[in-house]
Amino acid sequence: MSDKKIRIGIAGYGNLGRGVEKSIAQNKDMSLEVVFTRRDPSSIDTQARVEHISNIDQYRDKIDVLILCGGSATDLPEQGPALAAKFHTVDSFDTHARIPEYFAAVDQAARESGHVSVISTGWDPGLFSLNRVLMESVLPVGETYTFWGKGVSQGHSDAIRRVKGVKYGVQYTIPNEQAVERIRNGERPELSTREKHIRVCYVTLEPGADEEAVRREIVNMPHYFADYDTTVHVISEEEMKRDHSAMPHGGIVIRCGVTGDGTNQVTEFNLKLDSNPEFTASVLVAYARAVYRLAQEGQIGAKTVFDVPIGYLSPKSPDVLRKELL
Amino acid sequence: MSDKKIRIGIAGYGNLGRGVEKSIAQNKDMSLEVVFTRRDPSSIDTQARVEHISNIDQYRDKIDVLILCGGSATDLPEQGPALAAKFHTVDSFDTHARIPEYFAAVDQAARESGHVSVISTGWDPGLFSLNRVLMESVLPVGETYTFWGKGVSQGHSDAIRRVKGVKYGVQYTIPNEQAVERIRNGERPELSTREKHIRVCYVTLEPGADEEAVRREIVNMPHYFADYDTTVHVISEEEMKRDHSAMPHGGIVIRCGVTGDGTNQVTEFNLKLDSNPEFTASVLVAYARAVYRLAQEGQIGAKTVFDVPIGYLSPKSPDVLRKELL
Repeated sequence: MSDKKIRIGIAGYGNLGRGVEKSIAQNKDMSLEVVFTRRDPSSIDTQARVEHISNIDQYRDKIDVLILCGGSATDLPEQGPALAAKFHTVDSFDTHARIPEYFAAVDQAARESGHVSVISTGWDPGLFSLNRVLMESVLPVGETYTFWGKGVSQGHSDAIRRVKGVKYGVQYTIPNEQAVERIRNGERPELSTREKHIRVCYVTLEPGADEEAVRREIVNMPHYFADYDTTVHVISEEEMKRDHSAMPHGGIVIRCGVTGDGTNQVTEFNLKLDSNPEFTASVLVAYARAVYRLAQEGQIGAKTVFDVPIGYLSPKSPDVLRKELL
Repeated sequence: MSDKKIRIGIAGYGNLGRGVEKSIAQNKDMSLEVVFTRRDPSSIDTQARVEHISNIDQYRDKIDVLILCGGSATDLPEQGPALAAKFHTVDSFDTHARIPEYFAAVDQAARESGHVSVISTGWDPGLFSLNRVLMESVLPVGETYTFWGKGVSQGHSDAIRRVKGVKYGVQYTIPNEQAVERIRNGERPELSTREKHIRVCYVTLEPGADEEAVRREIVNMPHYFADYDTTVHVISEEEMKRDHSAMPHGGIVIRCGVTGDGTNQVTEFNLKLDSNPEFTASVLVAYARAVYRLAQEGQIGAKTVFDVPIGYLSPKSPDVLRKELL
C-alpha cells in the first residue's frame, strides 16, 4: 500500500454511521475526512469534522469513497443514485426484493458520472449472499438454508410496540436448534416457516394494561407472529434496560450438498455478532477499500459482493496474501 | 449462459480426477472431453475418452479448461507450468510453503503463452483461505483459528504404516472440541499444538507384533505425533475395511474479532465432508468455470481464489444472482 490514506466520508450518523467511524479507526490505511448529517452539525457528538449534507458538493475532490449509512426504506432509494453521481460509494441497501431496481438506478448514475458503487454489502445481503453463491456453485446438487438470529428484529420490535398496552418491546428471532442440527447432520428437510425460527418477545406494559390481551394480540398478529411459535415475557423497565439494550444478531447459512453417488457434503457459515450495526459497518469499510481499488483501475458502474475479488478487501498486497493466508 | 458447453479435460485419474468426472456430470454447462493419464489408457475404467498424456498436444484446440489432478509433491511442480503453457488450467496445489514459487512459475508460463491459470483451489488452500482473508479484512482486530478434521490425514496414515508390526493404519486428525468452544464463545486463547487437535489412529497388526511397542512408537514419533495427544486402537482387518475406507474430512476457520469498544464478533466457516477428494474436485470444477470466463475476457497469468469474483463461479448470470441470491 502507498502511504496515502484512503479518504472516507460518512453520509448519515445513526448506529451504522457511528459503527463506520469506529471501524475506520481500526484500519490504518484509511482516514475519516467528514461526516454528513441532515441534523444540525453542532448537535453531533464526535471528534470528526461534521458538515450539513447540503454542503456535500464541496467535498467532491476531498473524499475517495463515501459510505452511505442511511436506511433502506426511504433514505437509500433516493440518496444511493444521487450520491453515486458525485462520489464513489458503498452502501448496505438491504430490501432484498428491491435490489434489482436499486442496482439499475445506482448503476446508471455511477456510469454517467464515471463513478463506481458497491451496493448491498453487510452480512445479509452481503457475506451471507457470497456464501450462498459460493456453496451453490461448488455443490450444485443440494439445498441451501439461511437462519437468522439470535438477534433483535427491528421490524418485529416495532410491531409489538404498536400493540395497545405495550410501553416498550424487543423481539428476538432465534433459529430452531433442532432444525439446524438436522441439516448439519446432512438431512435436507423441507421446513415450514414455523419450523425454522422461533420468536421471543420482551415487553414492558402501560399501567393497567391487560397482560393476557397483550400476549394474545402479539402471538396472533398476522405476518409478524401468527406463523411462528412466539413467547411473550413481561418484564420490568429496569430489566428491559439492563438486559435488552444491546443489538446482537447473527445467523447461519448451511448448504447440504451431495456429490458423486450420494456423498453428503455440509458447509456452514455462521455469525455470532454482539453488535449488528458495528459488524455491518465493518463490512462496509472493507468494501470501501475495494471500491477505492476498483476506482483506481478505472472501473465504473454498480457492483455487488459477487463482482469484487476478495483480495480487494484486504490492505495486504496480493503476494503477501498468497504467502501468509493462502 | 450460451448453449455451448465448457469443454473440460482432466489430467490425472486418481481419486481427485474421478471426483472431477463426477462433479462435471452435475454441471450442465460443462462437458468432459477427455481424461489424460500416464498409465495405459485401456486400463482406465471410465465411460469418458481416455488418452495417454503424451498425446495432450492434439487437444490444444479441443479443450477450454484443463483441470490438473496430479499430486502437489512431485506432479504439479512440473505439470503446472508445463501445461499452463498449452492450456487454461486450474489446480489444487496445496504445499502452502511452496505456493509463491509455484505461482511465479505458472504465472510466467501462462503469460508467455497467453493463458490463464487458477492455482491452489480446493478447501485449504482455497475456500478456507478465502474465508481467512475475508474475515481478517472485515475484522482487522482479532485472531483467526484454523482447525482441521475430523478427517483422514494421508501423511500421518503413511507414517503409522511405516511402523514395524503395523500391517495397515489410518489416522484421523480431530479438532479439540473444548478449544473450539472457547473460541466460539469469543475467547481468544493462545493455543499450543497439543491443545488444538488430537490424533486417533486405527491399526491392524502383523502376526506376532508387539502391540505395546507399536503403540509406544506411534505416540512418541517426532513431528507426527509427539506434540499431540494420540490414541491408538488396534482393530481387525474386517473392522478396518468396514469402518475406515471412506475419506471424510473437514475443518473450521473461526475469526474472533473485536469492534468498537470491545464488542465481540465471531465468524465461523465450517466444512463436514464425507468425501474429501469429491469435495475438492467440486471446488476445482467451479473454479474451472471461472477460468473459462477469465479467458473469455482475455485475462492472462496465474490467479488465486483471492483474485476471482465469486460470481464467476456460478452458471447463473449476474442479474439472476442479484435477484435470487443477494
